Amino acid sequence: MKTLFKNARILKMTDENIISGNLVVTDNRISYIGKDIFDEKEFDEVIDCRGNLLMPGFKNAHTHSAMTFLRSKADDSSLHDWLFNEIFPRENNLHKGCVRELTKVAILEYLTSGITGVVDQYFFPEEFEETCKEIGFRAVSLAMYDPDSRSKETCLKLCEANKDKYSLVKYVIGLHSEYTPSEEMFNVTSELLKETKLPYYVHLSETASEVEECYQRRGVSPMEFFESRHFFDNGGAIFHGVYLNDHDIELIKKHDVIVVSNPSSNMKLASGVCEVSKLLEKGVTIALGTDGPASNNALDMFREMYLVTGLQKLVNKNPVSIPAFEVLKMATVNGAKAMGLEDGDVLEVGKLADIIMIDLSRPSMQPINNIISNIVYSGEKDIVKMTMINGKILYYNNEFKIKEDVQDIYSKVQKLTEELSVIKE
Amino acid sequence: MKTLFKNARILKMTDENIISGNLVVTDNRISYIGKDIFDEKEFDEVIDCRGNLLMPGFKNAHTHSAMTFLRSKADDSSLHDWLFNEIFPRENNLHKGCVRELTKVAILEYLTSGITGVVDQYFFPEEFEETCKEIGFRAVSLAMYDPDSRSKETCLKLCEANKDKYSLVKYVIGLHSEYTPSEEMFNVTSELLKETKLPYYVHLSETASEVEECYQRRGVSPMEFFESRHFFDNGGAIFHGVYLNDHDIELIKKHDVIVVSNPSSNMKLASGVCEVSKLLEKGVTIALGTDGPASNNALDMFREMYLVTGLQKLVNKNPVSIPAFEVLKMATVNGAKAMGLEDGDVLEVGKLADIIMIDLSRPSMQPINNIISNIVYSGEKDIVKMTMINGKILYYNNEFKIKEDVQDIYSKVQKLTEELSVIKE
Repeated sequence: MKTLFKNARILKMTDENIISGNLVVTDNRISYIGKDIFDEKEFDEVIDCRGNLLMPGFKNAHTHSAMTFLRSKADDSSLHDWLFNEIFPRENNLHKGCVRELTKVAILEYLTSGITGVVDQYFFPEEFEETCKEIGFRAVSLAMYDPDSRSKETCLKLCEANKDKYSLVKYVIGLHSEYTPSEEMFNVTSELLKETKLPYYVHLSETASEVEECYQRRGVSPMEFFESRHFFDNGGAIFHGVYLNDHDIELIKKHDVIVVSNPSSNMKLASGVCEVSKLLEKGVTIALGTDGPASNNALDMFREMYLVTGLQKLVNKNPVSIPAFEVLKMATVNGAKAMGLEDGDVLEVGKLADIIMIDLSRPSMQPINNIISNIVYSGEKDIVKMTMINGKILYYNNEFKIKEDVQDIYSKVQKLTEELSVIKE
Repeated sequence: MKTLFKNARILKMTDENIISGNLVVTDNRISYIGKDIFDEKEFDEVIDCRGNLLMPGFKNAHTHSAMTFLRSKADDSSLHDWLFNEIFPRENNLHKGCVRELTKVAILEYLTSGITGVVDQYFFPEEFEETCKEIGFRAVSLAMYDPDSRSKETCLKLCEANKDKYSLVKYVIGLHSEYTPSEEMFNVTSELLKETKLPYYVHLSETASEVEECYQRRGVSPMEFFESRHFFDNGGAIFHGVYLNDHDIELIKKHDVIVVSNPSSNMKLASGVCEVSKLLEKGVTIALGTDGPASNNALDMFREMYLVTGLQKLVNKNPVSIPAFEVLKMATVNGAKAMGLEDGDVLEVGKLADIIMIDLSRPSMQPINNIISNIVYSGEKDIVKMTMINGKILYYNNEFKIKEDVQDIYSKVQKLTEELSVIKE
C-alpha cells in the first residue's frame, strides 16, 4: 500500500520549520519527504493537500476511554458526590460485554481531534486491546490496574502482546494510585516491574487531600513512597502531578519520569493547576492527557494545549509562559515518549505513519501569520481534516473510515449507557 | 420564504426542557414550534434535523472583529511588548480599505461557532456595518469609540441606522476605556448619551494596573468614575470586569449594567479571572465575549463557555460552581440582552430566526445523558451543523452559504495582513 500526499506543508516537529513538498507512506511507515515529483500511477492513493499541513498525530498520554458512558452524567457536583454517588456505583455495573462499544465512541472522538495514540487505563484491557486492533487505533494499556484486582498471571499474559513488534497495542505496568491498592497489590506490582522491566504509570498527587492523606498514612509524599519501593526504576509516567514538592521533582528527574498534565480535568474537578513552567525549568518532560470523558469532558488535545499554556500564563501572571512550539512538542513528541513510541514521534523517513492533516482553510487558521501559534491558540477539532494511523486513513473530511456504521455504535452505546446508569441498591 | 425544520429536538432556552417536534421560519421570524405535521410542498426549504438540536444562536458580547490580521502575530509576549510594539504600530497602518475583508474572516469563524450576533468595537464602523449587511450577519456596533477621535456628528449619523427596525446592525455609545479618551471625548460621549438615550459600553477593570492607575489619577475606581459622570444612566455593559470592588458591584446593580466576561482573553493575557460566581450571587447579569482574535485567539463561544465555568470551579475550589444551563444562558439569553435584542433571545413564535443546529451525531455529543452538559462541557465548533441568521442559513454542513468565494476572502486578507504587518519607522 503506497499513499502520496502532494502539495503539502509539512511540520516534522524535529524543529519549528515548515517545509513545502510531498510525503510518501509505504505500508505503515513514512518512506519519503521532500520535493521530488512522483508518477501518480505508482500509488494506491494520491491526496492533494492543497497547501494544508501534515504533522505528527497527537498523543493523549492519559485517558480512560470506556468511561464515555459517564460523560455528562454528574457534572457540577462535588468531587465526593461525583466519585462515590455517581461514578463508582455505575462502574460497579460494568461488565466485559460493554467495554468494546464504550471504547469505540472514545476512539471516534480521538480521531476527530487528530489523536493517533493514547495511554489508556481501565477495566477489561483485553476488550480494549481488541477494539483498538479492530479499528486500527494505537494505544498503550496498563497491564496491572488495581481496582479490578488483576492477577499477576493475567498481567504477564497481557504483556505477551509486547513481543509482537507490529502490535498496535502495547502494555506497561501501572496502579490506579497510592491510595487504592492493597498491600498485596503493591507487592505483585513490584514483582511485575522487576520481572518485565516495563515502566510504571500511576495517578499521582492529583489533589491536595491525596497528598495530605499519604503523609498521614506513610509520612512521605506519594512520589517518595513509590520511589522508595523502586517502582520507578524502569522509568514511567505520573498522571496529574498537581501537588509535587521539590524532592518529588528531584526523584522525577532522577528516574526520567514523564509528568502527564491534564489541565482541563484538573480545572473542571477543581483539583488545581500543575506547575508546568516550574517543571519545565527543572528539565522535566511534560506530556498531555485528556483524562477520561467523565471528568473533562471532551477527548480533545486542542483543549489541553490551549489550557496548559493559558493556565500557566494566568497563574504565573506572565503571558510569556510556555510558548506555542513547546506546547505542540508536549502533545506530539513528548506524548510519543510517554507511549514508548520512539519511532512515532516526528515525521521522518522510517517513522510510523501516524499523521494528521490540519485544514488551513478553516477561518480560525486565517490569516497565516504563524501556523504553530494558529494551531495552539485558535485550533480546535474542526481543523482536523485527516487522521492516519499506521499508514491507514481512519478519518477524512469529517467522515470515519471504519467498517462499522457509526450510528450503530451510538445506538449500542446509548442502550448500554442506560443499562449501566441504574444504580443498584 | 418559508423553512421547515422537521424531526428536531428543540431547546427554546426559556427553560431547560428539550422538546421533540418541528419548527417553522417565515421570512426572518419563527412562526411555529410544535408537533403539527405540515405539507412539505408549502415550504421553500425543508430540513430534516434527524433528531439534532435546534437552539438560539450564541451571542458574542465583546469582540473586535477586524483584528484578524493580528491573530498569532505576537503570542507569548509580555502585555506591554504585545500592545506597544506589536498591536498599536500595526493598528496605525489600518485604513478604510481593509476593514471589510478583515471583518469577513471573523464573521466566517463566528458562523462556524454558531455565533449569530456580536457586540463589536473597532475602527471604521461604516465598513463593519456594510460588511455585516452584505453577508447577513447581525451586530451591535459602538458609534462612539475614542481611539479614532470620532466626532459627535459622525456618531449621530451612525445612530441613524437604529431608526430602521429591520437593520441587521444597531449602534450603542461607547468608549475604549477610562484611560484612553481625552477630556473632550468624555464630554462629547456624555452629551451623546444624554441626547440619544442609548446605553454605554466600555472596557472596564480588565487589569489590576488599570484600576490602580485610575485610583492614582482620579481617586476612584473606573466604575465609580463613569457612574459619577452619569455614563450608565441608560444602562449598558462593561467588558472584562476582572477587578471590581463591592461598591462597583452595587453601581452595576443600580444601573442594571451587564458584565461581559472574556475568560480566554483574560487567561491568555494573564489579566486574571472575573469573579463570575460572586457577581451571579449578587444578581448581576453575565454575558460572554471572545474579545478580539489578537488576544484569545479563537472566536469561539464553546471555549468561553467551558472556561467561564471551569475557571470559577478552579478559583473557587468548588466543582459545583456555575452549572451548565447557567452558562448556556450567558451565551444566549444574556448575550441577547447585551445586544438589546429582546426579540432574538429564545426560540418562541414571533422571535427572530437566529437559530443554530447542534450535530448530536458527533462523537463528543455521545451518549446522550444530558444534552446541555454535552454542549457546555464537550461541545466545540465541530458540533455546529447549521447557523441561521434572520431566517437565512449562512452555514450548513461545514460550508458557507455566502456569495463570495471563501478562498478569495482568505487571499485578500493574507495580502492585507502582510501589508499591514510592516511597522513603519
